[in-house]
Amino acid sequence: MDRSVCLLLFLAIGITCVTAQSCGYQKCHSLPIKPGMINVHLVPHTHDDVGWLKTVDQYYYGANTTIQRAGVQYILDGVIPQLEANPKRRFIYVEMAFFKRWWDEQDEDMHSRVKKLVNEGRLEFINGGWCMNDEASTHYNAIIDQMTLGLQFLNTTFGDCGRPLVAWHIDPFGHSREQASLFAQMGYDGFFFARLDYQDKANRLKLQNMEEIWRGSPNDLGKVADLFTGDLFAHYGPPEGLCFGILCNGQPVQDDPKLHDYNVDERVKTAENRSMEQAKHYHTDHIMWTMGSDFHYQAANIWFKNMDKLIKYTNAGNKVNLLYSTPSCYVYHKNQAADVKWNNNNTDDFFPYADKAHSFWSGYFTSRPAIKGYVRECNNFLQVCKQLEVIAGPMPFTNGGPSSQTFREAMAVAQHHDAVSGTEKQHVANDYAMRLHAGAVECQEVVSHALASKMKKGSVDPPAAQFCSYLNISICATTEENDRFSVTVYNPLARQVTGHYLRLPVNGQSYTVSAPNGKPVQTQMLKVTAQTAKVRGPRGNATSELVFPVTVEALGFSTYLITKATGRASRSLFMPQVETNVVSMMIPQSPMMREDTEIHNEHLSLIFDSTTGLLKTITNLKTKLILNVQQAFHWYNSSTGNNDDSTQKSGAYIFRPNDTEPLPITTKGSVITKVVTGELVQEVHQVFSDWVTQVIRLYAGQRYAELEWTVGPIPFKDGLGKEIITRFDSDMQTDNKFYTDSNGREILERQLNHRLTWKLNQTEPVAGNYYPVNSRIFIKDKSRQLTVLTDRSQGGSSLKNGSLELMVHRRMFYDDNFGVGEALNESGVFGDGLVARGKHYLMLESPADSSQLHRNLGEQLYMAPAVSFTPNTFSTQDWSNNFNMAYSALKRELPASVHLLTLELSEEDTALLRLEHQYQAADGGTPQTVSLQGLFEPFEVVTSSVEELTLGANIHAEKLERLSWNTNEGTTGNVSQQCWDPSSATVSLKPMQICTLRFHVKRRW
Amino acid sequence: MDRSVCLLLFLAIGITCVTAQSCGYQKCHSLPIKPGMINVHLVPHTHDDVGWLKTVDQYYYGANTTIQRAGVQYILDGVIPQLEANPKRRFIYVEMAFFKRWWDEQDEDMHSRVKKLVNEGRLEFINGGWCMNDEASTHYNAIIDQMTLGLQFLNTTFGDCGRPLVAWHIDPFGHSREQASLFAQMGYDGFFFARLDYQDKANRLKLQNMEEIWRGSPNDLGKVADLFTGDLFAHYGPPEGLCFGILCNGQPVQDDPKLHDYNVDERVKTAENRSMEQAKHYHTDHIMWTMGSDFHYQAANIWFKNMDKLIKYTNAGNKVNLLYSTPSCYVYHKNQAADVKWNNNNTDDFFPYADKAHSFWSGYFTSRPAIKGYVRECNNFLQVCKQLEVIAGPMPFTNGGPSSQTFREAMAVAQHHDAVSGTEKQHVANDYAMRLHAGAVECQEVVSHALASKMKKGSVDPPAAQFCSYLNISICATTEENDRFSVTVYNPLARQVTGHYLRLPVNGQSYTVSAPNGKPVQTQMLKVTAQTAKVRGPRGNATSELVFPVTVEALGFSTYLITKATGRASRSLFMPQVETNVVSMMIPQSPMMREDTEIHNEHLSLIFDSTTGLLKTITNLKTKLILNVQQAFHWYNSSTGNNDDSTQKSGAYIFRPNDTEPLPITTKGSVITKVVTGELVQEVHQVFSDWVTQVIRLYAGQRYAELEWTVGPIPFKDGLGKEIITRFDSDMQTDNKFYTDSNGREILERQLNHRLTWKLNQTEPVAGNYYPVNSRIFIKDKSRQLTVLTDRSQGGSSLKNGSLELMVHRRMFYDDNFGVGEALNESGVFGDGLVARGKHYLMLESPADSSQLHRNLGEQLYMAPAVSFTPNTFSTQDWSNNFNMAYSALKRELPASVHLLTLELSEEDTALLRLEHQYQAADGGTPQTVSLQGLFEPFEVVTSSVEELTLGANIHAEKLERLSWNTNEGTTGNVSQQCWDPSSATVSLKPMQICTLRFHVKRRW
Repeated sequence: MDRSVCLLLFLAIGITCVTAQSCGYQKCHSLPIKPGMINVHLVPHTHDDVGWLKTVDQYYYGANTTIQRAGVQYILDGVIPQLEANPKRRFIYVEMAFFKRWWDEQDEDMHSRVKKLVNEGRLEFINGGWCMNDEASTHYNAIIDQMTLGLQFLNTTFGDCGRPLVAWHIDPFGHSREQASLFAQMGYDGFFFARLDYQDKANRLKLQNMEEIWRGSPNDLGKVADLFTGDLFAHYGPPEGLCFGILCNGQPVQDDPKLHDYNVDERVKTAENRSMEQAKHYHTDHIMWTMGSDFHYQAANIWFKNMDKLIKYTNAGNKVNLLYSTPSCYVYHKNQAADVKWNNNNTDDFFPYADKAHSFWSGYFTSRPAIKGYVRECNNFLQVCKQLEVIAGPMPFTNGGPSSQTFREAMAVAQHHDAVSGTEKQHVANDYAMRLHAGAVECQEVVSHALASKMKKGSVDPPAAQFCSYLNISICATTEENDRFSVTVYNPLARQVTGHYLRLPVNGQSYTVSAPNGKPVQTQMLKVTAQTAKVRGPRGNATSELVFPVTVEALGFSTYLITKATGRASRSLFMPQVETNVVSMMIPQSPMMREDTEIHNEHLSLIFDSTTGLLKTITNLKTKLILNVQQAFHWYNSSTGNNDDSTQKSGAYIFRPNDTEPLPITTKGSVITKVVTGELVQEVHQVFSDWVTQVIRLYAGQRYAELEWTVGPIPFKDGLGKEIITRFDSDMQTDNKFYTDSNGREILERQLNHRLTWKLNQTEPVAGNYYPVNSRIFIKDKSRQLTVLTDRSQGGSSLKNGSLELMVHRRMFYDDNFGVGEALNESGVFGDGLVARGKHYLMLESPADSSQLHRNLGEQLYMAPAVSFTPNTFSTQDWSNNFNMAYSALKRELPASVHLLTLELSEEDTALLRLEHQYQAADGGTPQTVSLQGLFEPFEVVTSSVEELTLGANIHAEKLERLSWNTNEGTTGNVSQQCWDPSSATVSLKPMQICTLRFHVKRRW
Repeated sequence: MDRSVCLLLFLAIGITCVTAQSCGYQKCHSLPIKPGMINVHLVPHTHDDVGWLKTVDQYYYGANTTIQRAGVQYILDGVIPQLEANPKRRFIYVEMAFFKRWWDEQDEDMHSRVKKLVNEGRLEFINGGWCMNDEASTHYNAIIDQMTLGLQFLNTTFGDCGRPLVAWHIDPFGHSREQASLFAQMGYDGFFFARLDYQDKANRLKLQNMEEIWRGSPNDLGKVADLFTGDLFAHYGPPEGLCFGILCNGQPVQDDPKLHDYNVDERVKTAENRSMEQAKHYHTDHIMWTMGSDFHYQAANIWFKNMDKLIKYTNAGNKVNLLYSTPSCYVYHKNQAADVKWNNNNTDDFFPYADKAHSFWSGYFTSRPAIKGYVRECNNFLQVCKQLEVIAGPMPFTNGGPSSQTFREAMAVAQHHDAVSGTEKQHVANDYAMRLHAGAVECQEVVSHALASKMKKGSVDPPAAQFCSYLNISICATTEENDRFSVTVYNPLARQVTGHYLRLPVNGQSYTVSAPNGKPVQTQMLKVTAQTAKVRGPRGNATSELVFPVTVEALGFSTYLITKATGRASRSLFMPQVETNVVSMMIPQSPMMREDTEIHNEHLSLIFDSTTGLLKTITNLKTKLILNVQQAFHWYNSSTGNNDDSTQKSGAYIFRPNDTEPLPITTKGSVITKVVTGELVQEVHQVFSDWVTQVIRLYAGQRYAELEWTVGPIPFKDGLGKEIITRFDSDMQTDNKFYTDSNGREILERQLNHRLTWKLNQTEPVAGNYYPVNSRIFIKDKSRQLTVLTDRSQGGSSLKNGSLELMVHRRMFYDDNFGVGEALNESGVFGDGLVARGKHYLMLESPADSSQLHRNLGEQLYMAPAVSFTPNTFSTQDWSNNFNMAYSALKRELPASVHLLTLELSEEDTALLRLEHQYQAADGGTPQTVSLQGLFEPFEVVTSSVEELTLGANIHAEKLERLSWNTNEGTTGNVSQQCWDPSSATVSLKPMQICTLRFHVKRRW
């Protein structure tokens, strides 16, 4: 009965209509469970990829049907009336990137109909992030952001009844422990996925260990990060033969005895058999069937009509009890079983994922390196943008004007498991990049506006900021074309950054750089290399790069003024221009006579072999640690062949080399073509082939070496797929162990040919040992730790003692037959193949020193300063008279262990703040306390308004009641880890803890 | 507002709810037509094949999705709420075979929702037959029956608003003139189809002659059979690029500017362009778009949502006006155009259909000859069954007990354009046959019951009748296994049949046959031939056939008692057993010495060539007409090749021989293997090859020769497709003309390489001259007419003067690529190929005599006596004491020109009667009057209850108001041709007129 009828009835005869609201687990109480029977929870669901074979908008609208018959708008249109038609029916929806689009197109009537269904628990949101993010190539910062975007939408729109209780990663290709930890911190009570190693799954089926309490952070967060986790039985589809949608081939329930092909008996028998098969492997008398699949329910009636019949006829028997349900009610009824003690000894993750002996899904750890790099870069700029919206206040925008929203959504979309993962079609990858670009451009306006508002002192407006997105290939119109320009550098960290080097493409011979305090800055000029000129093609024409260090305060900016020097006159102005010594590569007459090349700064010395030109030795000049380590590039030849198990091809998903030993990439003689020395930076330029080059740099004052690799276009004429690695081969004894981060947060120990919770039969000695490296990988012995930080997610491993490798790029010519239908053969800007350029940051320290160092370096890398430019018509003095040249939004820095993870606007005067303890206990992390009082320069935190929220920012922390589970070691439980102390207005953080607060800001202007 | 709300409102505040009823063309008045603009009538429709790639029930349920994604239940489920959601939306539904199934599964609430939509003109039934029947291989009797079944269901269920106003044959592969005539007689105002010859269509487009008044019966029924007929522009689908369903690839209307791929401008432009393209070729400012296709609207929302948007955005412009409409409203608005004079000079049909130069759809005229034969046979038995339900009263059945209903439905389904046409997959053909068989078996019970009730005199029940379905291959358990048995022959004609020969398989040497009057009947015994023994395989073991003539009164039966004679004793009983003279084939020493073979009866002499054994000369002994005519079998080698136009393959649809001259099928020497003479029947047995044989018979007293051909298994080992013809080559000069019937009724003149209304560019000299032969084909000169009647539909032609050919069987090994996806390669009972056996009836008469003779012979063939058997334990005397042995339900015979087309129960005491004047005016037909008073023996027609109906039995004749159209020759109009005169209780019939009456019967018992 709808509301209007109810009103009429009320007017007419005084009947009162109450719309039942049934949030949380209330809705599960009324399910028609039959104790003692197998209760089969039928979960009608659709898995809607936020882009894959089609773009996200094409999927929403259902365009490009020749590629895939998938239109999300139709799914949601159709499911609502189907739910209304039968109150027993249930449906879950997962991806807010789609739901929000649809919601915005609906009228008020539909809004109220949907709300009613949500309030009654008939339509349930599950997972509820913007997308179902990838777990291998995503950074935790972006995961939290994309989840927050979805969960806040749900919270705002549906309130408590819209809150997802269960996480649902049914398609991602392997599962990170950090993801489980984050979900637990977001308050989820359960987590389901489908893809785990086939050996692991077989073992779990045998041991009846398909559901367990997964420990997301056993050494730091403890029970807070424990999560009930279920591995789905039949992938994420329905049991065999019981798939009923328009995209399915299950036989409908044909129940009219007058028609031919009456099949009720067979259908019931199938349902019973499938139930009993599955129930053998699960605890309790509850099992779950995932009744749906990719873009199912476009013709929702087909599914529901046949399920209605299947339930009716099957339940007429006495063997099994089918019921419409949801994952949360399934979890609830699992939780109700008092007699089960759930296994809780899994502290590992679920990487790498193999679905059969030779199909290891470890290729996508590296697939599409440029997208992966761009996503990380965008995350950085998005944080800058969001911070500045809080710091400077939102832009005074008309509806749809510039804000961070476009970028937030684009970044959230890009976290999808076929986006940053690199497993989408090329045209879809292009679309993700375009979205990110559009979001970034909008944020450039926001940033420009915000910087200007903080720069402005009086009546003169600062020139509008310009941005240079191609600094990595030495392109920047503003710096190339102007003799006088300013550079404003914003630092998104909660503490000062110093010694951060800018490299600006310029055309002049000599420049003066003036610091905010008016003092000249030391600079160094470097010639643009041939390799960079080749990569940038006809774009840009800078001949040199101007290098100089900058210093920026916490959450603040510094403006540097640069002026091209002319002739001798300029020199007389005490510009400390350091001449670059370009040492052309000398080819000695006899190999015997050559000397090793060395570059060094105050921290590190790097020695390169005289014959090969390869890195040979690293010495930490402070600690005197020495490591003999050769670094070189190699390529694995991608397997091709047919598609049975033993002839799996390498492709977008799959890494499968033809041989266990990669082939070296090297020229005859030394790879070194140039050595640059100078006071600010020293460089060794290496050319391994005409498509693999590297510049190894030491900047003055930095504790790491920067290895900038440029790979591509990967040759294709020989038809051989190539997967390019950089490998460090050292003399360390590492016990076949190595360490990788999990989504950029906690570190997991890896061991060659070993899995922590099950006995591995290794069938792919290379691909089966690859793990995702989101931010860092290291090997160590007792005294030394060789750490490599990356600027994007890559696959990596240590296949031999002392060795460490990262895959940087890959190109192949066959589809690997997991649906994408294209070879991963990126053509790049010039059509001959994608060139990828990235950086590795190499540290040699003691293990004890390493952890905090790589934490803070990692933080600086993914939250690097944002640089903007303006042509400058002012004199230095005029500039400083008119504009603030340095600024900090923090009145005091946060401790090194505390990372300002999030600072963003929720509403105009409401901010969301996340502070994170970025050290693990094993890093020597200890509890920290931070006061919010008087912390921010532009506003005061209204402490009385502070709400402590769960990680997804959708639940008040004190209201969260997670289910408690019996385990081998007592119960998990509703462990509180509250961080906010209202009385002292302080935040307390234990190692790895993230504190999420929302508060009103009282602006000081 | 639904009825319950309305009631509440009424109770509460006294508002009166009126459900608008908008029948006929009322509903068209409110359409948002914009005069002066192009008004585009969007007609949402689904084309639901009543079997094709899947069986009719599989299509209903949506089973076997791997073959085709098609489930009709889902279409109807989904369309209803979509119509309810927007009152402007329209939908049409066509096939009652599906709709009735669905309707029966719905509850009362859905019934009232659907009725509301029908009453408001939002859901409209179009065509409304049980199926969309084929037009090439269907008999008019079966067409009328199947249409009646659907139309009566609609009338009973929905009343006047359910009446279809427009006929809709959008898929059948060519169109018969008789179909147009029948539709006109059923009261339709318009008729639409999609498939016509591509040259014809191009010509019509050029001449703006896509819509016209087609003259269905120019020489007999005149304006009564005129029909506004439209050729659809874009086949029966939507305009290119505007197909929106789940089975379509049109781009959705993407109207959210925030999303990528916004395409409203492009979509509107496309709609405008398509409108303007089409409008150029049609009169008036109305055009129609068929928005749907095969099994579309399984996800109805996709179609409607996008059409809603297309209409909204397109109509925001000022070029075209899109509106939801229906074919009837389109016809209505066409009709309103006062200034158009419609062409009405088309008296031709639309056969054969070619969609391109080498793709003539004339293969299916013959495809699946066994199904085609069985369908004709079933029609015969269905009429018997229905007549007997009226004559004897319905069986006292419990719900679902035996009646003619199952058979009616099975026959109606079998008329579908992928059923009797032979263009379905093999498993579907099997299903049709199974349905027919099930219907026939049920009718056997009905017939048995009815005959028994009329046979029974006192207390003794007659033995239950047994039926022999395999008499054509000399199998009948009752006659083979019993020494004494009865044969009861029911005659469904409205006049006596005499000299009808039975051929009963027996094992004895000699039998006595006793007529109903107790007198012995002359018989003849024939040996079962080797060919028949081979064809029947292990089934049956009769050694001989007992031949004797029977006489049966109008709508009556005669029982003959047969007793096996033993030894001499039997001979003494004056049994006039005529010894059969078996003349073994003599192979003379020298060809010169052989003599021609002759057989003859009192009417005809057939002379066979001494060398070849082929028919050489026919002489009509009464009229002295002589025709030199050779008859032989030939085969066309089916074309194979690729699928571009010039290499079209022969297949289920397409006839395309490799060469214009077929290859002869003949052995060395004479084909004659045996000659049988006797007083009742004389036979010449011919063997053309081990897979083509023929028996040519002359029965005493009959004016025709019977040619029983047996063809198959067609050899397959050479991989050559073969299409087998029988050809008569005579010395007549026929001016390249020949004559074929249209669905068994009127005769159309055909001319080689010629079309009546457009200039043909003949590209397939054989296939392009083939026409459907439903019942007869003839050639003639001034004095002689050679007429061949068939026992089933076949393709036929006359490719040379004096020649006449019929295709009897075909087998090929390639799909012809029109969707069926199988080669037409029937495997038959024994797996090596289907054997088909059938008969041709050959007459040589003057043209003047021929027409009435072939009319009455044709009538006798398709309404042949039905024969049933019982073992007999009575003496002849006891049988006649206990049981009536002869009976007629007619008290007086109808004239030879009047055919009793239909006699069936509508309700228990209501009968439907159709009387047909079966002569054309050109046959010498003159008006006839028949009185119904005292006509029937078992009941009196309650003359006061007589209702005259239109042909489909769904409209009172006097209420019919057909639209009047301006033509070149004045207006067509609502021409009354009433046949029932209540005052005299007589039926008046003009040539070719069919009178449809419904009345109460007052039974005499």
